[in-house]
Amino acid sequence: MNTNHMNTNRHLLLCFAMMSISAVLGGCSNQRSGYAGSSLSSPTQAHAATLASWNDSPAKRSITAFVARVTNPQSPDFVPPPERIAVFDNDGALWAEQPMYFQFMFAMDRVKALAPNHPEWKEKEPFASLLKGDLKSALAGGERAMIEIVTATHSGMTTEEFDTVVRDWVATAKHPKTGKLYTEMVYQPMLELLSYLRENGFKTFIVSGGGIEFMRPWAERVYGIPPEQVIGSSGKTKFEMRDGKPVLVKLPEINFIDDKEGKPVGINQHIGRRPIAAFGNSDGDLQMLQYTAAGSGPRFCLYVHHTDAVREWAYDRESHIGKLDKGLDEAQARGWTVVDMKRDWRKVFPFESATSSGVDDR
Amino acid sequence: MNTNHMNTNRHLLLCFAMMSISAVLGGCSNQRSGYAGSSLSSPTQAHAATLASWNDSPAKRSITAFVARVTNPQSPDFVPPPERIAVFDNDGALWAEQPMYFQFMFAMDRVKALAPNHPEWKEKEPFASLLKGDLKSALAGGERAMIEIVTATHSGMTTEEFDTVVRDWVATAKHPKTGKLYTEMVYQPMLELLSYLRENGFKTFIVSGGGIEFMRPWAERVYGIPPEQVIGSSGKTKFEMRDGKPVLVKLPEINFIDDKEGKPVGINQHIGRRPIAAFGNSDGDLQMLQYTAAGSGPRFCLYVHHTDAVREWAYDRESHIGKLDKGLDEAQARGWTVVDMKRDWRKVFPFESATSSGVDDR
Repeated sequence: MNTNHMNTNRHLLLCFAMMSISAVLGGCSNQRSGYAGSSLSSPTQAHAATLASWNDSPAKRSITAFVARVTNPQSPDFVPPPERIAVFDNDGALWAEQPMYFQFMFAMDRVKALAPNHPEWKEKEPFASLLKGDLKSALAGGERAMIEIVTATHSGMTTEEFDTVVRDWVATAKHPKTGKLYTEMVYQPMLELLSYLRENGFKTFIVSGGGIEFMRPWAERVYGIPPEQVIGSSGKTKFEMRDGKPVLVKLPEINFIDDKEGKPVGINQHIGRRPIAAFGNSDGDLQMLQYTAAGSGPRFCLYVHHTDAVREWAYDRESHIGKLDKGLDEAQARGWTVVDMKRDWRKVFPFESATSSGVDDR
Repeated sequence: MNTNHMNTNRHLLLCFAMMSISAVLGGCSNQRSGYAGSSLSSPTQAHAATLASWNDSPAKRSITAFVARVTNPQSPDFVPPPERIAVFDNDGALWAEQPMYFQFMFAMDRVKALAPNHPEWKEKEPFASLLKGDLKSALAGGERAMIEIVTATHSGMTTEEFDTVVRDWVATAKHPKTGKLYTEMVYQPMLELLSYLRENGFKTFIVSGGGIEFMRPWAERVYGIPPEQVIGSSGKTKFEMRDGKPVLVKLPEINFIDDKEGKPVGINQHIGRRPIAAFGNSDGDLQMLQYTAAGSGPRFCLYVHHTDAVREWAYDRESHIGKLDKGLDEAQARGWTVVDMKRDWRKVFPFESATSSGVDDR
C-alpha cells in the first residue's frame, strides 16, 4: 500500500475523469462525424453461421485461419481447450462508447434519481449544476467533481442493491442519439465472434476499464459471458452483518483500475494464465495486446478501428474517448489484425434492418 | 487506500504470521495426535463411482440429497447450471495442513535455496537462524520476521518465474511426517466430491487464505480446478517491459488477504455471484459459509472436522492451525453438515492401501 500505488490509482482515475470531462465539454469535436443510421428491428444474439456479419476480407480470414490452426489436433500450433483464453475490451470493442462512456451516462442518471434523498445537492457542486442540466459547470471541478459523482452513485449500498439499480437502468435508459437501449448498441460482428470462439472451445472474458459490477448484471444475457469471466475496475467492499444477514457494502474507495498497465495485472489476478487472443479498440488495450502477443506459441491480437461515421462513429488518434494512436502504429508494425469497421463489417448493430456492406456504401 | 484498510491487511497478516509461528514454536501441542498410517500406492484422481470413499452415513446422504434437489428440473429447488457455484477452502479442506501450512514449508525451503545468492543472510535474522535449522529463534521476531520470510520468497521475480519455482517444489518436496509429495496429501473423498459436483453441472472454485499464485500451478492437475477458478491471497504485481518483453513483477506488497471476512469479498470480486454450496474446515471459512447460506433458494454448507488421529490428525477448537470453534457451534446450530473424518470417510488419502472404514478402526 505504498505511495507509488496510490499515485498510480489517482493518476488513472484522473485520466478517466479527464477523458470523460473532455468528451462532455468538447462535444466530441474530434469525431469525424456522429452516428446516423438506425431501424426498428430488435437485437439478436449471434447465429451459428460463421461470422455472418463480417465481409469476406483479410480481417475475417485472419480470425478463421487462427482458429483453424489452434484447434486442429494435427497442427503443431494446436492449443488444448483449457488454454484457449480470449480477452475482450468492452467499451468500443463490444458495445459503443460515444458520445461518452455509457457508465458515465448511468452515473448522471443516478444523480438525478437520487436527488430527492439529497436536498443538500441543490446547493452543492457538482450536483447542483448537474441537476440543472449544466454539465459544463458540473464538471468544471475536474477530478474532484468526477470522483464525487462516481462516489455518490457507486458506493454506500450493498452489492445486491447496486446490481438491482444497474439492471433497472439497462432495462430502461436510452442512448441520446439512437434512442436504443444501451445493451442494444452492441456490435453484431463481435457477438458472432464471441460465439464462434466459444464454439471452438475458447473461454471468453471481458477485460474492461469499466466497472466490474456495472457490467456483470447484463454481460451474461447480452454477450453470453458469465460474471466470473468479467474483469473490470472496482471499488472496495466490506463484509458486514445487517440484521443477522451477511452483506457486502460498497465503499467509496478504489480497489483496482483495470486499464492500460492494469489490464495484464487484472488478467493475471483473475485468470492466472496468459490469453492466446486479445481484442481491443484503444490505446488503453495496448498492454493487454502486448502481454497476449508475448506468450509462446500462436497468438492473435486484433484492434477494432472506428472508421464508420455513417453507421457508427469515426474516431482514432485524436479522440478523447477510445483514443487509438500508439496502438494503431504498433498493430501495423507487428502485423496485428485491424478491423476497419466500415470496410470489414456487413452490419454494425443488431437492430440494423439491412445487411448492406459498408463497402457498398462508399 | 485508507488507514482502516491498511490496518485490516496488517491485522490479517499478523494473524497468519502468528498462527504459523505458534504452530512452529508450540510443536502443534493442541493436536490430539500426529499422522500415522501410510502405504506405497500412488495418488489417483476420483473415479466415476459416486463418492466411493465416503461411508454411507448422514454426511454423504446430505450431499447427494442436495445435488438431487438442485439438478432435478421438476424440483421447485432446481438451480440452472450457471448458478451452480461451489466454493472450497484448500488448507485442511482439500489437502492437509499439519504440522503447518504447506506454503510455509515452501517458504522455508525457498530461503534455503536462495541463501547462496544472499551471503548477508548468514548474519541477518530471521534468515541466519532459519539456515541453522533453528526455527524457534528465526521466528522470535514475530510478525516482522514472518513478513521478511514471505517477502524474500514470494516477490522480486516475475509471475512466470514464481510459477516455475512452485512447480519444481511440488514435484520434489516431501512432507516431513509421511514422506509423500504435498500434492499426494489431498483428501480422496474431497477429490470425489469435486468430480461429483462437476458431473452434476457445478463449477468448482477454490477460495483459500493461501497464495493464489502458489496454488494455481498445480490445482488443475491435482483437483481439476483451472487457474481462473482459484481465489486466494495475493501480492501486488507490476507490468513492466524487460528487453522489449512484457512481464509482471511480483512486488513486496500485499494486494488482498482472502481469509475470514475477506472470503466473501474475494468471492464477489472473482465470481460475482453468490455460491450455492460452500465447503470449509475452520473458523477462517465461517464468513464464506454464512455468505453462501444467506442466499435465497437451496443452499449447502459443510465443515470437514479433523477427528482422525490415526489416518490424519485430530484437532479443532484449540488448534493454532485450522481452528474450528465458532464454526462448529454455528454448524450445529444451523444444521450444516459436519463431516467426521474418522466416521464418514472410508479412506483419507489416495495413497492408502486399504479401503478400511474409519469406523472399523475404532
